[in-house]
Formats: sequence, structure tokens, C-alpha cells
Amino acid sequence: MDKKVIVTISREYGSGGRIIGSKVAEKLGIPFYDRKIIELSAEKSGLAVSFVENTEQKIKNKFLHNLAFGGYYMGADLGAAQLSLSDRLFIATCEIIRNLAEEGPCVIVGRCADYVLKKRDDVIDIFIYSDLEHKTKRAISEYGIDPDKAAAEVQKTDKYRANHYNYYTEQTWGDKNNYHLCLNSGFLGVDNTVDIIVDTVKDYIKNKQA
Amino acid sequence: MDKKVIVTISREYGSGGRIIGSKVAEKLGIPFYDRKIIELSAEKSGLAVSFVENTEQKIKNKFLHNLAFGGYYMGADLGAAQLSLSDRLFIATCEIIRNLAEEGPCVIVGRCADYVLKKRDDVIDIFIYSDLEHKTKRAISEYGIDPDKAAAEVQKTDKYRANHYNYYTEQTWGDKNNYHLCLNSGFLGVDNTVDIIVDTVKDYIKNKQA
Repeated sequence: MDKKVIVTISREYGSGGRIIGSKVAEKLGIPFYDRKIIELSAEKSGLAVSFVENTEQKIKNKFLHNLAFGGYYMGADLGAAQLSLSDRLFIATCEIIRNLAEEGPCVIVGRCADYVLKKRDDVIDIFIYSDLEHKTKRAISEYGIDPDKAAAEVQKTDKYRANHYNYYTEQTWGDKNNYHLCLNSGFLGVDNTVDIIVDTVKDYIKNKQA
Repeated sequence: MDKKVIVTISREYGSGGRIIGSKVAEKLGIPFYDRKIIELSAEKSGLAVSFVENTEQKIKNKFLHNLAFGGYYMGADLGAAQLSLSDRLFIATCEIIRNLAEEGPCVIVGRCADYVLKKRDDVIDIFIYSDLEHKTKRAISEYGIDPDKAAAEVQKTDKYRANHYNYYTEQTWGDKNNYHLCLNSGFLGVDNTVDIIVDTVKDYIKNKQA
């Protein structure tokens, strides 16, 4: 790609957003960031990967968040004294995302990247959603979730993601006004969703060059 | 088109949704219904076109709606005795939309068509939205709205549309879960938005035939 564009993909659990992002990156020939951001955030914040993974999107609600992290100070480090572990992690993630965007075109899945990169003018923000039935089927077939618990797991995970996003961005997760395209992957299918995003990116670059 | 598909387009005021729908219909070579539905509804309900136009999307809120229409009975026609003028109009519109969908592939803009045709399995529902700045610019350049009043007009019209939709469908206007694609036309531009919809329809038909 001649011109630079960063694609952020926010996605409901079981919507196939991760694989869609990965395929988009492959088709465009640009880096794909998902789990790697967790590793980089852990490194940057000095926290263990397992803590980052568990904490990242699992702030059940603001009350619990405050209860769990609000009173936890970072000891003698005055600069971080008022920051919870979770806040430190979020700040580290933001910095990593901003650096990745600075480096070159890429696809970033999750991590409030649409919000973190809001001030840039070379970002396309996508939200991938689906109906509960499709998401549940995918949770069972792709992630091996117990069929009896899959629908509940989908709803719980989406609630985690919403709470995390809403808490840190003060925007509403999944509100179409935060994104340029919202695509129902249950209806469109993974491959058509990928094609729409790839075509949109190509059109965007073409228009930028025109 | 070999296989039948109906495209419903819901749109924010100033998003270009009408022209997008019209171009989609032209590219697909299928009928486009917008204002024509008003005429057909007026004919069917026995109300004047001007009344239909003024009433259709201008129910300011449920309180005003009930105040204005709730106690207005249709005289000796017992079947319609409990229905307000607005309700009669909505029922007439629903029937017209269902008949149009039955007749063959088409593009329908507005009129809660996504909700009215919800039980069909050959419908693609699109929502076109945009940021206030783009919508306001379009309201000025395309509809000749006074620049000083354009932003307020956009917001008022969108509120009318939301109230009308929410009142009759008991769903939320613009909630992405009611649509298969939500496209930000301010970002994408009219022509790219058209292309995304046309490609989606073509893919949908190809998959149905496969």
C-alpha cells in the first residue's frame, strides 16, 4: 500500500472479528496486532502477561473495578501513585497502540484502538457484530465453549468488553457513531465482511491519492 | 437480477441516504421507492398526500401523538373506530410495502420498511448515518436549508424519524442490531457507500444461488 491507513476492528465475542481482522491484514499485506499487544503491554507496564490477559477486558463493572483496583497504590513510585494496576495497563496499551500506528499501516483488533487513535486522520474504524445465535454457534465451534454455557458466555464477554471500553473511553461500545462501518458478520459471512473492509480501505487510499 | 432481494435503507437526515438508495436501485436495475410510497399510502388510506407528507415522520413525541391523534375517531367506520389517522396511515403504508416486496426486488427508503419486512428472508437492511458536520453541509447544499438553522433542522428531523420509528416498531431507530450494515456516508462518501451496498447485494445473491 502506498498510502498509510490504520484499520481498527472492534468486535462482539463470537462475531469472527479477530479472524476477519487477520484476513484483512493478510489481503492488504500489512501487520496484524491482537495478542501481541497484550505481550507488549505486559512488557511495558512491568506486569505479567497472565495478569494482563485476565485483567484486560474483565472489569465487571465500575463498582467492582473501583473496589478491586481503586485503593491499590504502586508504592514508592510517586508518578504512578494514584494509578491502579488496571489504569497503568491501559496507559501502557495506549502508548503501544499509538507507536504501532506511527510505525506504519496495520490492523488492530480490540483494545479501544478506535478511541486511542481518534485524533489521527488515517484510521478506519470498524465494528463487527452479529445476532446471538450466530455468535453462540461460533463460540462453540471455534472456541470449544460448552454448548450449554455458550450463549451466557457470549453475553458475559460482550458485557466485559462494553464495560472496559465505556469505562476508559467514556464513549459507548458498539455505538455506530464511533465507527465508520458496522458490519453484521452473521448475515454477511466472514469472507464478505473481509471483502467489504478491504474494498473500503482500497477506495479510501485511492481517494486520498486523488 | 436472477434471485430476488429487497434492500431497505433507513437514513439520518442529510446523510444522502435517499440518493444512495436511488443509485443502488439504478445500478442493480430494480425499482426504487421513496416518495411514491407516500402517494400510494394516501390513496389507500383515503387521506390527502399533503396530510400524509406532513404527518408521516412528524410525530413529535408520544405525548403529542396521543394528544393530537389519540381521541380522533373515524366516524361511522367501526373497523377503524379505534384507530387514529396516523395509525391508519401506518397500516396502509405497511400493506403497500409488503405488496411491493411481494412483487419483486426493489430498494425502499425509510417508512420503517426494515421492520415491516422483518419476517422475510430476502431482505438486506441498511442504515446510513453521518456526523453532524457532514449532514449539516448536505442539508445546506442539497436541500437549501438556511445555514444558520441547518444543524438544528438536521437534529430535529432525526428526532422526528426516531420517534416515528420507535413508536410504531417498538425498536430503536439506528440501533445497529436492526440492520445488516450501518455505513457512515460522511466518511465513505456517497459513491463508495453505493458500491458497498451493490457489492453486498451481489454477494448475497451469489451465495443464495450457490
